[in-house]
Amino acid sequence: MNQPGKILKNTIADPSFFMKQAIRLAEKARGTCSPNPFVGAVIVKNGKIISEGWTQKYGEDHAEIQALKKAGKSARDADLYVTLEPCAHYGKTPPCADAIIKAGIKRVFIGILDPNPLVNGKGVKKLLDAGIEVTSGIMEEEINRQLEYYLCRIQKGRPFVLWKAALSLDGKYAAQDGSSRWITEESSRIIVHHLREEADVILTGIGTVLKDDPMLNVRLPKPIKQPLRAILDPYLEIPLNSQIVRSLTEYRTAIFCAPSRENSPHAETLLSLGANIYPVTAKGKILCLKEVLGILHQQGNYLILLECGSQLASSFFSEKLIDKSYIFYAPKILGGNQAILNELDLPDINSAIHLKDVLLKKTGEDWFIIGYPVY
Amino acid sequence: MNQPGKILKNTIADPSFFMKQAIRLAEKARGTCSPNPFVGAVIVKNGKIISEGWTQKYGEDHAEIQALKKAGKSARDADLYVTLEPCAHYGKTPPCADAIIKAGIKRVFIGILDPNPLVNGKGVKKLLDAGIEVTSGIMEEEINRQLEYYLCRIQKGRPFVLWKAALSLDGKYAAQDGSSRWITEESSRIIVHHLREEADVILTGIGTVLKDDPMLNVRLPKPIKQPLRAILDPYLEIPLNSQIVRSLTEYRTAIFCAPSRENSPHAETLLSLGANIYPVTAKGKILCLKEVLGILHQQGNYLILLECGSQLASSFFSEKLIDKSYIFYAPKILGGNQAILNELDLPDINSAIHLKDVLLKKTGEDWFIIGYPVY
Repeated sequence: MNQPGKILKNTIADPSFFMKQAIRLAEKARGTCSPNPFVGAVIVKNGKIISEGWTQKYGEDHAEIQALKKAGKSARDADLYVTLEPCAHYGKTPPCADAIIKAGIKRVFIGILDPNPLVNGKGVKKLLDAGIEVTSGIMEEEINRQLEYYLCRIQKGRPFVLWKAALSLDGKYAAQDGSSRWITEESSRIIVHHLREEADVILTGIGTVLKDDPMLNVRLPKPIKQPLRAILDPYLEIPLNSQIVRSLTEYRTAIFCAPSRENSPHAETLLSLGANIYPVTAKGKILCLKEVLGILHQQGNYLILLECGSQLASSFFSEKLIDKSYIFYAPKILGGNQAILNELDLPDINSAIHLKDVLLKKTGEDWFIIGYPVY
Repeated sequence: MNQPGKILKNTIADPSFFMKQAIRLAEKARGTCSPNPFVGAVIVKNGKIISEGWTQKYGEDHAEIQALKKAGKSARDADLYVTLEPCAHYGKTPPCADAIIKAGIKRVFIGILDPNPLVNGKGVKKLLDAGIEVTSGIMEEEINRQLEYYLCRIQKGRPFVLWKAALSLDGKYAAQDGSSRWITEESSRIIVHHLREEADVILTGIGTVLKDDPMLNVRLPKPIKQPLRAILDPYLEIPLNSQIVRSLTEYRTAIFCAPSRENSPHAETLLSLGANIYPVTAKGKILCLKEVLGILHQQGNYLILLECGSQLASSFFSEKLIDKSYIFYAPKILGGNQAILNELDLPDINSAIHLKDVLLKKTGEDWFIIGYPVY
């Protein structure tokens, strides 16, 4: 009969060797399994990987289950490496911890514990109670970053907000006449379409709709999915002949407006065409952003891609709601006064918002930075 | 008796091999020999470099002479590689072409011909007439770039203008209260001080003097030289207690003003303290930039480092007078409306000024781009 095990410190030779592979496998599931976090797993026996798994689409196998199924009876006495703590609860699928125990896995190496209160330590406890050796905290930094959207949702109770901007060298997002197509080159725009593909929601303001008449969809050969389009439109001004409205049947669309605006004839038309309309608290024409994010969160949207004008981006920064920034730069000077974040009111240089963990990348003649605002 | 030679096409094995070394040697003279161009030379015999040279300070040996002196009698029948066509005229020193002939050099490999009308082909002709084989046009692109300041002076008849800016991610050069010290970090500022050290002039506007009270000097342990400080001050508003005025005896300073302003009592005080004052044509408070550059050029200043506020930088761009840009970015967001080049009036996105040959470099947490505006 199995004795209860105990949590071991990470003292074995190199558990990060196999964890790296689990991290790589998790990437195969990125953007495909929402609302589940994307996880990777490998089963190792005699120092060799005997099977691999990653989270399948919602309702199907988790990473561990896929790996266990592939390993079959060979899983007995093997080691399992998994990026996130195995679940211990019945969701759409039975608990992974049970399957691991049943398969006869000897040791489990976990990247990070799952902060989800339904799991948080319970998965580990179940494994320990079954006599399995459990080591956790392997490559935590990398996995915390990999699962940043999921962790934000669980820890902050709101979606992760990723802000994207395309700027000239002089920080302008549009020329003096408002024209902004295209500041950056195609290779930059393809990266943005991949961000859109991963996102649950593309969020913008009515200003951008009126100025650019965007489609806000993923334009890639075979997109994994099309995100929800969300428009902040306090006075419900979105024109019936806009591209957004003309494609309401094709793409899910949520319009957020000030209270009572949802009762207008225009609102009825939009509803009849397939839009969902959400009245939220407003101060004048400023909608409550936290309420908007709350509604989107409740609906199971955990990654918001913010693609908007300067005013809305400034509001998001003011409320410290931007978690990550992608800023693209093109090697050109636009002049004029349409600089990004002009409306962000920071009194002096000591109030500047720093970005940490900045990556600088080149793409074609453009470049972009990825960073995390520190408030 | 020598037969006249002829210009050979660059067909020998690899003349760029030795030319690269000549280019590297030229860098030793950068910023040290103005108004002479900085040139490098190597003498090669039996496939080996037997001596090296680079331009010494003004009035002393040119690169070829230094290399010939070091080689002594070994120079006979050797090859000379030199980045710029040897001079054929008496300046502060006798013609290099004569010395090359006298030393018995057999073949001369030249990077680029010297567009200076005093030389332009005459150096080559002298060598050919003496029966020396001459090959020119080796690594032209690199040397045209290396000698860009010199070539601008000769070809455009005005100084080369290098614009430097230090910006936040959102293109702001100052916070809302005007504070701009320091947007970028120390490693960026050290690079700027090296640019200052190389420059003949640091040019700014009275706005920057009033706002930042800068010193506009080189703050490095042992600067090669201190450039001239030039201030565009149409109404002669520079305060007597400014750092610039208080250091007039220490650093050469030129103040450009609107006509007749040079006769004011304030002007007399400034003159008595050591400033040079130049009235130039003005439209209202806008001084004629070409006239300013013309005066600086006449005085033997060939590299202008423009470190100024948005308005003056916009004027320089409007007049297509910026030859090269160094733009530093710090990973921070400043907000507010002090974006750079707000006053640059370009109507739409198709009028954007592109930068070509852009280099993107990281320094500490900052990064910067170097590029050439295309007008």
